[in-house]
Amino acid sequence: MRKESDKILIVGGDRRFDAAEDVLKSKGYSVSRITDEKGAEKELNEADVLLLPLPYTADGVTVYQPDGKGPIPLSAVLRSLRPGKTVLCGKADAELRSAAEKNGAVLLDYNAEEDFAVKNAVPTAEGAIAIALDMLPVTLNGSRVLILGFGRIGRLLAAYLRGFGAAVTVAARKPSDLAFAEAYGYEGVPFSRLAEAVKEKEAIFNTVPAPVLTQEVLTGVSRDAVLIDLASKPGGIDRQAASVLGLNAVRALSLPGKTAPVSAGRYVAETVMRFLSGTEGDG
Amino acid sequence: MRKESDKILIVGGDRRFDAAEDVLKSKGYSVSRITDEKGAEKELNEADVLLLPLPYTADGVTVYQPDGKGPIPLSAVLRSLRPGKTVLCGKADAELRSAAEKNGAVLLDYNAEEDFAVKNAVPTAEGAIAIALDMLPVTLNGSRVLILGFGRIGRLLAAYLRGFGAAVTVAARKPSDLAFAEAYGYEGVPFSRLAEAVKEKEAIFNTVPAPVLTQEVLTGVSRDAVLIDLASKPGGIDRQAASVLGLNAVRALSLPGKTAPVSAGRYVAETVMRFLSGTEGDG
Amino acid sequence: MRKESDKILIVGGDRRFDAAEDVLKSKGYSVSRITDEKGAEKELNEADVLLLPLPYTADGVTVYQPDGKGPIPLSAVLRSLRPGKTVLCGKADAELRSAAEKNGAVLLDYNAEEDFAVKNAVPTAEGAIAIALDMLPVTLNGSRVLILGFGRIGRLLAAYLRGFGAAVTVAARKPSDLAFAEAYGYEGVPFSRLAEAVKEKEAIFNTVPAPVLTQEVLTGVSRDAVLIDLASKPGGIDRQAASVLGLNAVRALSLPGKTAPVSAGRYVAETVMRFLSGTEGDG
Amino acid sequence: MRKESDKILIVGGDRRFDAAEDVLKSKGYSVSRITDEKGAEKELNEADVLLLPLPYTADGVTVYQPDGKGPIPLSAVLRSLRPGKTVLCGKADAELRSAAEKNGAVLLDYNAEEDFAVKNAVPTAEGAIAIALDMLPVTLNGSRVLILGFGRIGRLLAAYLRGFGAAVTVAARKPSDLAFAEAYGYEGVPFSRLAEAVKEKEAIFNTVPAPVLTQEVLTGVSRDAVLIDLASKPGGIDRQAASVLGLNAVRALSLPGKTAPVSAGRYVAETVMRFLSGTEGDG
Repeated sequence: MRKESDKILIVGGDRRFDAAEDVLKSKGYSVSRITDEKGAEKELNEADVLLLPLPYTADGVTVYQPDGKGPIPLSAVLRSLRPGKTVLCGKADAELRSAAEKNGAVLLDYNAEEDFAVKNAVPTAEGAIAIALDMLPVTLNGSRVLILGFGRIGRLLAAYLRGFGAAVTVAARKPSDLAFAEAYGYEGVPFSRLAEAVKEKEAIFNTVPAPVLTQEVLTGVSRDAVLIDLASKPGGIDRQAASVLGLNAVRALSLPGKTAPVSAGRYVAETVMRFLSGTEGDG
Repeated sequence: MRKESDKILIVGGDRRFDAAEDVLKSKGYSVSRITDEKGAEKELNEADVLLLPLPYTADGVTVYQPDGKGPIPLSAVLRSLRPGKTVLCGKADAELRSAAEKNGAVLLDYNAEEDFAVKNAVPTAEGAIAIALDMLPVTLNGSRVLILGFGRIGRLLAAYLRGFGAAVTVAARKPSDLAFAEAYGYEGVPFSRLAEAVKEKEAIFNTVPAPVLTQEVLTGVSRDAVLIDLASKPGGIDRQAASVLGLNAVRALSLPGKTAPVSAGRYVAETVMRFLSGTEGDG
Repeated sequence: MRKESDKILIVGGDRRFDAAEDVLKSKGYSVSRITDEKGAEKELNEADVLLLPLPYTADGVTVYQPDGKGPIPLSAVLRSLRPGKTVLCGKADAELRSAAEKNGAVLLDYNAEEDFAVKNAVPTAEGAIAIALDMLPVTLNGSRVLILGFGRIGRLLAAYLRGFGAAVTVAARKPSDLAFAEAYGYEGVPFSRLAEAVKEKEAIFNTVPAPVLTQEVLTGVSRDAVLIDLASKPGGIDRQAASVLGLNAVRALSLPGKTAPVSAGRYVAETVMRFLSGTEGDG
Repeated sequence: MRKESDKILIVGGDRRFDAAEDVLKSKGYSVSRITDEKGAEKELNEADVLLLPLPYTADGVTVYQPDGKGPIPLSAVLRSLRPGKTVLCGKADAELRSAAEKNGAVLLDYNAEEDFAVKNAVPTAEGAIAIALDMLPVTLNGSRVLILGFGRIGRLLAAYLRGFGAAVTVAARKPSDLAFAEAYGYEGVPFSRLAEAVKEKEAIFNTVPAPVLTQEVLTGVSRDAVLIDLASKPGGIDRQAASVLGLNAVRALSLPGKTAPVSAGRYVAETVMRFLSGTEGDG
């Protein structure tokens, strides 16, 4: 889609984008970066490709950049959009999409790519295990663990936990997911038997973004258990009920950037390079 | 969907259906079986549910039954179809579908269910490994193996082969499948680099039902390698080219019924019970 | 060896001994515990079995008890020794041994039992992985890791790390250990090739209690690598050289009590019960 | 110990020695081979190193050589022994040892080396699994398997079987072996509970060369189970009792040469090269 000679500008971002910059440069791309407003306008105008962070903004006003030198106003980015410019962005919202469209710029959301999501499931699963290792007073080896959901993250969690010699149970809705779980050697239980499945588990990992660990189900959870909620948005644990029951529940979000920023940055770079080389994606 | 009191009749079938019969009976279903034409008409008429084998016919004239006492004409089955009767069948074709529809019978193809396919991937992968263990003059441990395709069978093959300490490479088309393969710790290569990936592999397993191991690709395969084609219909290996090149290629089809008939029969019974209990499937 | 009706007294100790107490009580043993000097003399005199912590003392004057109510003088313990009394102790030294012998008490060191050591290798390996997950800016998945030594800890580390999809290399001295490492699917390298093996590794775990990671070897280690030294006493890393080279090296000792105190306490209880039931050990 | 310029003569042998010859030649050794008596005397006299097969004889009269052109009398070999000559041999017996000693030749038994035994455990375990895959009417995945003994072969069997998603139970005598089995995530049971442990297992693998599967224990084995005896000499299964009970028991010996002759031959070559280069072994 784009020539390799195009100028890429990384706008703001966290540690992941240090790594993304390194990878892109090592692959021969022409990359520069701005971390404050100084000279931003000129750079934004001259760049062929803008690489925005993930998320591209946290406050709706400036580009996301937790440790940057100074704020970069979103308005400066929007002003620079024009035909021939490509914006690569994580979690594009309606506002950014319409601004790009209005100005004839191409907008691509790397966070919406299936392979990017699969790659990020790795540090998410590893981060969840790091939390479990920290919180559990027992070893993962020999523990009975329950994983809710058998999608990208659930599958990797199951594999990694089994590597420790944990006894892994997977709760899933689809019969084919349950069949897959058992084909890998895990115990599979349908969600209809969740209230029973949570019993006598040392650790419970939720990956389902729906209220699955309800008050009723939580009453069966051991007081010694650790509950780790990896599901986005509303999460899957009734936090209030967990608190009343005295359960040990934590919410773990955005793990890739926290536990493995260099890997997470590489994933950004790899998806960006796929976009720029025009290789077809998962579609 | 059906009452548990319904009469199930197993019509013909191979060893798998011995196991399916055992499971269904142990779960309290009313099951009988016919293995020849004697008394077939009465049984076929009285049954509420007909369980036909997989495939339901091999010759288009009789019900599939490799070791039965006598032939059971398909025509006898078709004559028994009427409203209120359910036909459970593997690999239903247009003929059977139209016969069922014309006579008001319900036809369900257990072989088309996603969880049934996932379960059957297990004995398929195990059977493929049994073949590799037999054919290879070296151990799987320490061998470099290549798996083409990362669907149901490819994923299990990869997991089981890695269990032996083989060095597993997965060739896949979709970036997300490659990402998944690497998340599990395998080497992932896109199909565009297949010609290179086949080199120096001791065993190559194909699961892709398309001509992927072409003459051109096969020229890079080691003379000592073993090629095992698990793909249905046309298969994925250019058999003629393989033969000319002196390569050791085998086609392995219908492994579940051969390598693990009792397990394969259980899968039939489990899907049948899901149908009869009206539990929703993968959709 | 001892009747189950014997009175066991746990003297001091850390969180592990809370768990040990729970397990022993749940198995029907008569157990009490002292955590300060109050009433200690009477309890020490009346007990048939004294269970001392691991290590039994840290300062040579009081019983080890990081969070106890008050100090328990070692002298009080020694005064209570007499014929018929059994002392179960971790890391018994010459002083305690001679005191027991002089007074006719039986002294058994649970920490010297082979199965106890194997069990403690589990939380040690898990703790080492927790450290690696915390320190590494990349995922373990896809990382190249090197393990020095293929004894109890090295074997488990290798298995657990491979579970994450890391590429595991094992450095060992004995040809049979190298053969074993390769039989499990790891790459094995003799110590003579260590200087080469450390290169391009993201994480290096040492389990060998000898100066193996010398200055010369360390010069080949990547600046981005993490070095985790699990070896007792002198450790295996030249810490000064590592510091001069700017390497990221940590020493991780006594992991079981830190990362999995409940499991570690169970191991104590299990070995204690084996001692008391007179079941033969590893000999 | 020996110069690399020494002349190695392979005397007889099976397919493994084809592979051993290839490896030794590829590493630059001067190797020749005799497969019948023709010219044997001259070759035997001129060689510096004689590499005898494994076992070196099956009939006590000729060198072991199942597919050779003609018999090679042992006497011809013995006549060639003299000071400066090295004999590398598998399963040396008293007769050969005394003949070598009497004539001043050095005799080394590669089969007695620990690393050679570990390496051969790989094809033994793989061969055992191939047998199980062939015999079992169910999949290994989801099967409950019991392994008697947790030495070289037992450990690899456990790892490979778990790779299939089998539920692995290990019976062992030593507490530390049981602890190790559980650290890997298997269920460990002491031999004292063997009668109970055999129940409801689909496959039982014995690696213990002692009568462990006695008539009494066998009465608890399922009629559908498969018993595979890998133990040398007397084996561990009471074959007569198994037969009376109608159990499905097989004895599997010398698997490496049968299931992976090329790998097995490489192991011979590797140990031979270690001998000739004078590298210290496992001692």
